[in-house]
Amino acid sequence: MRAASAVTLTFLSAIICCSFTLQLSPPNIIIMLMDDMGWGDLGVLGQPSKETPNLDAMAAQGMLLPNFYTANPLCSPSRAALLTGRLPVRNGFYTSNAHARNAYTPQEIVGGISKEEILLPQMLKKKGYVSKIVGKWHLGHRPQYLPLENGFDEWFGAPNCHFGPYNSSIRPNIPVYNNSEMLGRYYEEFKIDKETGESNLTQLYLTEGLDFILRQSDAQQPFFLYWAADATHAPVYASKRFLGKSQRGRYGDAVMELDYSVGQILAWLKTLGIENNTFVFFTSDNGAALISAPNEGGSNGPFLCGKETTFEGGMREPAIAWWPGHIKEGTVSFQLANVMDLYTTSLALAGISPPEDRTIDGLDLTPVLLNEPHLLLDRPIFYYRGNELMAVRLGQYKAHYWTWSNSWEEFKTGINFCPGQEVPGVTTHNQKEHTMQPIIFHLGRDPGEKFPLRVLTKEYQDVLSRISPVVEQHKKNMIPGIPQLNMCDMAVMNWAPAGCEKLGKCLKGPESKPWKCDWPH
Amino acid sequence: MRAASAVTLTFLSAIICCSFTLQLSPPNIIIMLMDDMGWGDLGVLGQPSKETPNLDAMAAQGMLLPNFYTANPLCSPSRAALLTGRLPVRNGFYTSNAHARNAYTPQEIVGGISKEEILLPQMLKKKGYVSKIVGKWHLGHRPQYLPLENGFDEWFGAPNCHFGPYNSSIRPNIPVYNNSEMLGRYYEEFKIDKETGESNLTQLYLTEGLDFILRQSDAQQPFFLYWAADATHAPVYASKRFLGKSQRGRYGDAVMELDYSVGQILAWLKTLGIENNTFVFFTSDNGAALISAPNEGGSNGPFLCGKETTFEGGMREPAIAWWPGHIKEGTVSFQLANVMDLYTTSLALAGISPPEDRTIDGLDLTPVLLNEPHLLLDRPIFYYRGNELMAVRLGQYKAHYWTWSNSWEEFKTGINFCPGQEVPGVTTHNQKEHTMQPIIFHLGRDPGEKFPLRVLTKEYQDVLSRISPVVEQHKKNMIPGIPQLNMCDMAVMNWAPAGCEKLGKCLKGPESKPWKCDWPH
Repeated sequence: MRAASAVTLTFLSAIICCSFTLQLSPPNIIIMLMDDMGWGDLGVLGQPSKETPNLDAMAAQGMLLPNFYTANPLCSPSRAALLTGRLPVRNGFYTSNAHARNAYTPQEIVGGISKEEILLPQMLKKKGYVSKIVGKWHLGHRPQYLPLENGFDEWFGAPNCHFGPYNSSIRPNIPVYNNSEMLGRYYEEFKIDKETGESNLTQLYLTEGLDFILRQSDAQQPFFLYWAADATHAPVYASKRFLGKSQRGRYGDAVMELDYSVGQILAWLKTLGIENNTFVFFTSDNGAALISAPNEGGSNGPFLCGKETTFEGGMREPAIAWWPGHIKEGTVSFQLANVMDLYTTSLALAGISPPEDRTIDGLDLTPVLLNEPHLLLDRPIFYYRGNELMAVRLGQYKAHYWTWSNSWEEFKTGINFCPGQEVPGVTTHNQKEHTMQPIIFHLGRDPGEKFPLRVLTKEYQDVLSRISPVVEQHKKNMIPGIPQLNMCDMAVMNWAPAGCEKLGKCLKGPESKPWKCDWPH
Repeated sequence: MRAASAVTLTFLSAIICCSFTLQLSPPNIIIMLMDDMGWGDLGVLGQPSKETPNLDAMAAQGMLLPNFYTANPLCSPSRAALLTGRLPVRNGFYTSNAHARNAYTPQEIVGGISKEEILLPQMLKKKGYVSKIVGKWHLGHRPQYLPLENGFDEWFGAPNCHFGPYNSSIRPNIPVYNNSEMLGRYYEEFKIDKETGESNLTQLYLTEGLDFILRQSDAQQPFFLYWAADATHAPVYASKRFLGKSQRGRYGDAVMELDYSVGQILAWLKTLGIENNTFVFFTSDNGAALISAPNEGGSNGPFLCGKETTFEGGMREPAIAWWPGHIKEGTVSFQLANVMDLYTTSLALAGISPPEDRTIDGLDLTPVLLNEPHLLLDRPIFYYRGNELMAVRLGQYKAHYWTWSNSWEEFKTGINFCPGQEVPGVTTHNQKEHTMQPIIFHLGRDPGEKFPLRVLTKEYQDVLSRISPVVEQHKKNMIPGIPQLNMCDMAVMNWAPAGCEKLGKCLKGPESKPWKCDWPH
């Protein structure tokens, strides 16, 4: 009897100890954010050439979220939203130079992420997290805007897109940083062969990620890894061993290398025995760039149009949550969710309350992720383009208040965000207002947004009466932030990034001549 | 030692016995053919509302074939091709009334499957198979064309589509047969409520399938079950317990019930312990009928257009092969394959040589299915519309020799086979000939057929030089069958099917007044 009791006691204390530990020890957090990868680029989401065995396995071991959205149909605002938990129109990552325009952070941008914003790594510090970003930053490239000035402890990657190569007298090549100093520049020290598509950057990013995970695991310190590889953004690239391996050409090769890398990272967590203490989320920053298709653009599956638009193809993202022992394997959640939820959810996992002095648009998804995949938290999705609320999703219904693909002028030069697709009155080439009578789709029956509900039906009127107050409430409470993406200046480009002296790679830029940036779409 | 030897001997003889039996005993064959279900309707192929857990599990336990095709973009010719192993233009399931027209077997059709054709169940009889068709026949409804006259031992289902209800004086409702006699008619004894979409037909088909499997299993006789449910063909229907359960409305409800039924059939094989001796193949007869979308039409995922067209959306089909212990689980084969291969492959599994006195278009897929998923047998895919070879796929390339969605006249009345899609010069509304300079797509990079290769590129010229001889050879050797779908007559409709006397359900038809059927698209 005494022996049995002792065993029971030990067993009980083990349970108490462990659930206690689990509650007290916050999990590591890895957010893998792809660049211009589309919803339809994953095998598990219907890519016919099935290039993603590791991501498909990740979904089979975790939770797939087919209704996951970005906050904006392009890169910089989407990334700013993820790291602030706030819509770009609140955190300032938009332009007011013209109506409903997509703005981002090219080299000539003057602005960047506002000091008023509180980024995820800043918050996670409260619980001792060490944070690293690997890959593309895109929240401003001037010194004060860089990752180590904004909460990250480490960085390996670049502040802007890997466009180029540039003639250094007109425009410098983009620097690649190791923490607060540049290591070299794209097309110079960091090669991308635009002829062959060869570059080892994804391998560098993988190694940097694995190394960071190992160091943090050894140090037994919780970590946040923001793994933001950009191989699927044009100019698309892959390492030699992946080039020519896919059925899709260079784009598919890049997907295969990213998929391989995801597999390596998950396997590494298992090797280190920390998979049960590491929450991993995979998604992308916006829809596939159909303007670069078919050679350098991905797939948005059955959805309409792509990057730059507020149709589903522009903003619905592949999304997988993975955390063995915590997220039930092989589940699908139809929860409407978005990148800003990753902010709030990460804070919840770390046991940190979100900032209370501002509106946070992200939702805590832990009830869905950890407890009940069938739970559907009630919330709308807002589709912004620049300073305009273009559309709103509520349940299965999406109401378009403004439609626009791109302008006739642009379209006539061959720039097409909806190649091969045309829905009359929907994929419009002028900014068309529908605020008095929104175009409404049922995204369950019609995920491709091809069959607007007829206005005179009861269904339309019912939906409208439910969506209208949501929109009204949202607009009433909206206090836009100061727009950070209005001004451009050739003088602010990456002429002389920190560390350039040591490398002898400082360039001299022109005099400052700021102008109001022109955002054509 | 003696005891040990005895055990060894028993063990060895058990091995010998069983592998011997396995080789000699041909497997049961189940072909599940869906009606108008699209490639993109399966969760594993990217349907966002993920309604097919059983089919997704079937793929995970078996082999997925993302490059599987039908033989024609609509029902009757596709089914005739499956059961004869021959292109419709050979087996006579086409029309020569006009150029490149889709023809099928409505009630007024005079013809049906030719007695010259040798159907799969007729061949399988050679090895003692008992064959049953459950569901839609569609190879002609006049007495001589019915299943029991063409090799099947049993039938539960109907000869035509479940259109209706009809006023019996103008047009009779379609009969439902049990073997060689009608049991009643759609909308009369076999209810389909077009208001609510409720019908228990899929449940009847499921029960019929399970019952046949049980009887054959008990009798230890090899069987061929051709399970041809039609709930996803408009008017779409589902049982009460599935209605309203999907995110897609009635169409998704029907998919869920079919998926449930597939799960029940596979589970039944396991319950009976015959799963290792039963080859199961799941596919569909043609692309989703986008003309019925979004309420009663499915999804072709990323592919162009739908049913009735020779674009990928019209002819690429969902396809899963399942045979535990024989087909490696969780595999994907990119083999170019089609419904006619099911004929040849079934014969190979049964150990029967295909007919030698005629061209068989089907290929034996067993090397791919059973041995080597990465093997790619070299073969083209031919896309026919009626009597015209519209396109050819070779490897990743597809060359269109003729393009046509539907006529301007039809299109202007609202009939649209490519809603929301328009690829200039490709989705044409007149029959456009490109035989001198085919439109070529790379289906790996561009599965949606939106970006034709430029004619002056080396890639185009290389492809053309490889495809041209294949086309030439095919045309040279093509001996078209006598077209069976040219004549219509109101007198041949289902006025007085066999068994109608017993039920008091014989109707009197009009005098025979045959005419050349008009096939508008």
